[in-house]
Amino acid sequence: MNVGILGASGYVGGELLRLLLRHPKVEVSFATSRRNAGEFVYRVHPNLRGQTKLKFVTFDPSKITDACDLLFVATPHGVSSTFMPQILETGMPVIDVSADFRLKDPQAYIKWYNWEHKCPELLEKSVYGLPELHREEIKKAQLVACPGCMATTAILALAPIVKAGKVEKNRIVVDFKVGSSGGGAHPSLASHHPEHYSVVRPYKPVGHRHTAEIEQELSLLADGKVSVAMSAHAVNMVRGILATCHVFLTDSVSIVDVWRLYRQFYRDEPFIRLVRDAKGIFRYPDPKVVVGSNYCDVGFEIDKDNNRLVLLSALDNLMKGAAGTAVQDMNIIQGWDEREGLWDSGLHPV
Amino acid sequence: MNVGILGASGYVGGELLRLLLRHPKVEVSFATSRRNAGEFVYRVHPNLRGQTKLKFVTFDPSKITDACDLLFVATPHGVSSTFMPQILETGMPVIDVSADFRLKDPQAYIKWYNWEHKCPELLEKSVYGLPELHREEIKKAQLVACPGCMATTAILALAPIVKAGKVEKNRIVVDFKVGSSGGGAHPSLASHHPEHYSVVRPYKPVGHRHTAEIEQELSLLADGKVSVAMSAHAVNMVRGILATCHVFLTDSVSIVDVWRLYRQFYRDEPFIRLVRDAKGIFRYPDPKVVVGSNYCDVGFEIDKDNNRLVLLSALDNLMKGAAGTAVQDMNIIQGWDEREGLWDSGLHPV
Amino acid sequence: MNVGILGASGYVGGELLRLLLRHPKVEVSFATSRRNAGEFVYRVHPNLRGQTKLKFVTFDPSKITDACDLLFVATPHGVSSTFMPQILETGMPVIDVSADFRLKDPQAYIKWYNWEHKCPELLEKSVYGLPELHREEIKKAQLVACPGCMATTAILALAPIVKAGKVEKNRIVVDFKVGSSGGGAHPSLASHHPEHYSVVRPYKPVGHRHTAEIEQELSLLADGKVSVAMSAHAVNMVRGILATCHVFLTDSVSIVDVWRLYRQFYRDEPFIRLVRDAKGIFRYPDPKVVVGSNYCDVGFEIDKDNNRLVLLSALDNLMKGAAGTAVQDMNIIQGWDEREGLWDSGLHPV
Amino acid sequence: MNVGILGASGYVGGELLRLLLRHPKVEVSFATSRRNAGEFVYRVHPNLRGQTKLKFVTFDPSKITDACDLLFVATPHGVSSTFMPQILETGMPVIDVSADFRLKDPQAYIKWYNWEHKCPELLEKSVYGLPELHREEIKKAQLVACPGCMATTAILALAPIVKAGKVEKNRIVVDFKVGSSGGGAHPSLASHHPEHYSVVRPYKPVGHRHTAEIEQELSLLADGKVSVAMSAHAVNMVRGILATCHVFLTDSVSIVDVWRLYRQFYRDEPFIRLVRDAKGIFRYPDPKVVVGSNYCDVGFEIDKDNNRLVLLSALDNLMKGAAGTAVQDMNIIQGWDEREGLWDSGLHPV
Repeated sequence: MNVGILGASGYVGGELLRLLLRHPKVEVSFATSRRNAGEFVYRVHPNLRGQTKLKFVTFDPSKITDACDLLFVATPHGVSSTFMPQILETGMPVIDVSADFRLKDPQAYIKWYNWEHKCPELLEKSVYGLPELHREEIKKAQLVACPGCMATTAILALAPIVKAGKVEKNRIVVDFKVGSSGGGAHPSLASHHPEHYSVVRPYKPVGHRHTAEIEQELSLLADGKVSVAMSAHAVNMVRGILATCHVFLTDSVSIVDVWRLYRQFYRDEPFIRLVRDAKGIFRYPDPKVVVGSNYCDVGFEIDKDNNRLVLLSALDNLMKGAAGTAVQDMNIIQGWDEREGLWDSGLHPV
Repeated sequence: MNVGILGASGYVGGELLRLLLRHPKVEVSFATSRRNAGEFVYRVHPNLRGQTKLKFVTFDPSKITDACDLLFVATPHGVSSTFMPQILETGMPVIDVSADFRLKDPQAYIKWYNWEHKCPELLEKSVYGLPELHREEIKKAQLVACPGCMATTAILALAPIVKAGKVEKNRIVVDFKVGSSGGGAHPSLASHHPEHYSVVRPYKPVGHRHTAEIEQELSLLADGKVSVAMSAHAVNMVRGILATCHVFLTDSVSIVDVWRLYRQFYRDEPFIRLVRDAKGIFRYPDPKVVVGSNYCDVGFEIDKDNNRLVLLSALDNLMKGAAGTAVQDMNIIQGWDEREGLWDSGLHPV
Repeated sequence: MNVGILGASGYVGGELLRLLLRHPKVEVSFATSRRNAGEFVYRVHPNLRGQTKLKFVTFDPSKITDACDLLFVATPHGVSSTFMPQILETGMPVIDVSADFRLKDPQAYIKWYNWEHKCPELLEKSVYGLPELHREEIKKAQLVACPGCMATTAILALAPIVKAGKVEKNRIVVDFKVGSSGGGAHPSLASHHPEHYSVVRPYKPVGHRHTAEIEQELSLLADGKVSVAMSAHAVNMVRGILATCHVFLTDSVSIVDVWRLYRQFYRDEPFIRLVRDAKGIFRYPDPKVVVGSNYCDVGFEIDKDNNRLVLLSALDNLMKGAAGTAVQDMNIIQGWDEREGLWDSGLHPV
Repeated sequence: MNVGILGASGYVGGELLRLLLRHPKVEVSFATSRRNAGEFVYRVHPNLRGQTKLKFVTFDPSKITDACDLLFVATPHGVSSTFMPQILETGMPVIDVSADFRLKDPQAYIKWYNWEHKCPELLEKSVYGLPELHREEIKKAQLVACPGCMATTAILALAPIVKAGKVEKNRIVVDFKVGSSGGGAHPSLASHHPEHYSVVRPYKPVGHRHTAEIEQELSLLADGKVSVAMSAHAVNMVRGILATCHVFLTDSVSIVDVWRLYRQFYRDEPFIRLVRDAKGIFRYPDPKVVVGSNYCDVGFEIDKDNNRLVLLSALDNLMKGAAGTAVQDMNIIQGWDEREGLWDSGLHPV
């Protein structure tokens, strides 16, 4: 099967290329980039040197139907909603890793993104592409909106306990620690190595956009409005996110109960690992351990003194947080083994 | 004035040496270390090469009175309580950076440290050495118990708002990000560079010992039991702590109110900087900016959707988190300018 | 085919496990570890959680013949020479990543390793397992001695120009920058994160053991004694080695000549990439770009003022520097595609 | 005494501010910045928050005489030579940390910097501001040209042995490892954290501009043309440079000889430390140990097999590599203790 990638010069685009170039069931027929059109992709993604002779091309919507059977979109937020209707008309299945079709409520785009949605009618049609919550819908979707990297991290940590109705729904604190690749491929003073090395920078202590997605998905599960109080910090690593979710229990819940709940919820999930070890140095999820893999590690601990449950989840923001989930979604749509092209364990140590 | 340092081969001991060797009003008359007795201190603290010919000596309690006028203690937790009564009998003022005299309740040592206190009668006499809360008592104290590094970070962020009675006292979440020097000078698998590089490791998601100190001090301020739900993460840096405190407001509070409250509380404090900038890349406290200085930077932001106040504080765990505060305490005891020997701005970039 | 791994709890052992568990043509039938016998391998190699239920076992030489068809040995230096004769008697092919069979001259073990070789008669029989130099011998070998990680880096950079006879053979300077995983999995003060972060530590400015291998192999190519002046530095990364080789030309050599020489020498090599780009930020080899891959990137530049040729090579010390080459050697022995199990591009960014 | 700083918004400017604001004998009367005029200096140099209320101003050459008694210049290369004659006419002593007056030969600016010098007549008059070589001239200089950071590192390592005439003058290899602050305060793709983290990037394997300075100064010492073959690598740290100098001995030289030579050469130097220890983990110079200090650590080792002497030197590029030496030069000019304002040991660990 032929696939194309729109916006392939960013970090998520590069990761899609890495995964799709070696995926046994697909061929990458094109990868677009305005800035880098005509350039070998390995000039921008140096790891791909020797793996492909592909060059970036410019994007021509009218030629897409011929050129591929499925389209990945990794353009900046606000771009894909300008051309999506045109592409969908051709019947082409599309997996969009940008934010343009994640939220169901058009008003939410005004509140969180500060722009009015160009094609709000598609919001209902699009499927939020988190396999662990929407696998059945993804199978039948034409337009899949891949979740934000931080949203995936938080939702996978919180979903089982929120669904079980065991927590205070308006006292959910999610404290994120994020690697620098999450900020994208464009340099700025904030990402300048001398300014970013060794930081723990609270770059978005309140008001982060992913709040909207997390609340949307958790509210669906909880059958009632869930409010999420998130804060985001940049730390000194490149790949990875850790979400530390602090929730207050409304019920008497033991560690065994939590284990049971999470085991059951994620029973057959190929990319969720429950991590709560009594020994070793990696007793809880740590983004270091999932670098390069599609795993999301989820762990937990109970703080009896505060009736608090701490939920921890770690993933590679470019993999399970973006490109990995996108490929997983493609596998689901195509009816292939979900793990196809995603078998890698992470690297350790790295 | 002559000062001595017990337990000078650890990181806090090294920082005390660095500060005291250049303090204009003191001479370091001895520095003890069991493991390194007879060795030049610069062999263990290589930054001090060329700054001193001092050698480590072994500790002989009976000779202390003659050798110094004030004693710093930086021995491991549980050690100083075995010899403190003997030293105090001599009338010597002592500044202890270990945990042995921080808690007022002897039972708390059993709960949090798992040992019975050897001289509980001293707990009442000792002063919790946080100048911002206990300056007047420190002036008159013979035994000062320097706060734990994480405790200082959290207390300085929370004290004004907790004292003002504006927050839910049993929903206080404090999420810490800590540099590797906080774990001390002894290597282990967890601190092995290949295993520690790029981590965001939740090493103590619940049950951290500093909870006891934080709750003790905040409860004093609040005039009522304050409960703190803390979680600690190791991140990829050496010096520094960021505390992100998520508290829920019980009252309508604006950003201007918070500014006013914090400005007033810390009005004359030489080492507290309020940081909440509208531009630049360091808008909130970040441990990167305080490395090598005695500052604690405190910032805040309001999350109206959740009625949450996020308080952020950053300090250098070896400075304001330990040795810096110890020297500040000495300056207070001696009636000197509190900033003596502590004038350094941090390094930037570093 | 069944393979076994002796000494599988170190970093090279972990990387062998990672590669072999997903290699399409082999099964890992056992992995030994004295310290960790009985433990799940994912406890030691946390990236393998969810990938295998294998547990470490103790090593019983008498059972090896039944348990596997090919044996990887990743024991510490000096160990495999104590049991190798016994294993080879069974006819089992062995790939040893330790140093025990790399040097042809038994005296060299005394000079460089300070021990007398237990079975010097095997040194002649063993093959130095660098495919780019000894592919034909590897095909027929029973005992392959995988090169040291730094040796591979230097040899691959220098081989073409040394073979061409264009350089002063006794003025070859090789300056290494090495990631912390190269020091192995055992923690020490030198590897303690607070002591290792941000270092550029000249840990072996002269007298590094790998000198022996490099000189052995280059002398074979040069048909005459080649002397190598190497220095090794630890830097702040986990995986990767960069070798900067400074050689002085004996002949008039242009950049085009060097390109031609290296292109020809490495014409069909699947894992050598020549990197000397006129644009972009990765114009020369950089270990960052090869992390997780089996590539060795080789580049060069001419310094006319000094008649110097600078040769640069970068690889992942756990991959092409150890486990990757070991798997490549297995593929050669078995007559499989050399790239089997080694298709990964590196991760970027990471 | 009043001092001014031209070009104070870069990293060297920030370090000058840090040092001069607390220097007991000077007042900073102004700090200029085109981009940041009107802004508080702590907005750009966040470590200075709370230390000064100074704001950046624009540069007006006609007002300089009134505003200060001594001028520091930290403008980009090629700028100060456009206004220097005008300033010097006023009799004002100037310490320039840019490259504009370091080289004595006007032709060298064409070769290495690709521009023609605007006031070549000043080159003879300016003094190369390395106190260890030119202290007496600095005392009497009106225009001091501070050395480049890499030049200082290499020269201090090589000067004694080159002066002694013991090495091959055309086989001197200097391999540099440089922190990211050496690249300045302007962000670029190369300095983007995701692209710069974990690198060992050979950014200038041949043809680095500092070659000119190093050769100029060493040739003066050697009384004959010295040729230096340098290569520069960016590594994953912010502050610091390590120079590894590989030289070949023309004479029989023992370690004791080298010790004697270096001890004698640097006998009374306050900022040179000779580091070659038989134990501990910091046996040789390492930039980690000098961060924040004005020390240059120099060490050495002999490689008998190659008749090679390895010289190692480490310094903080913003301190002894730039602002620290500039302040030292001011102290010399003024006849003050050279260490004034420069007493700091580095931080350890950091």
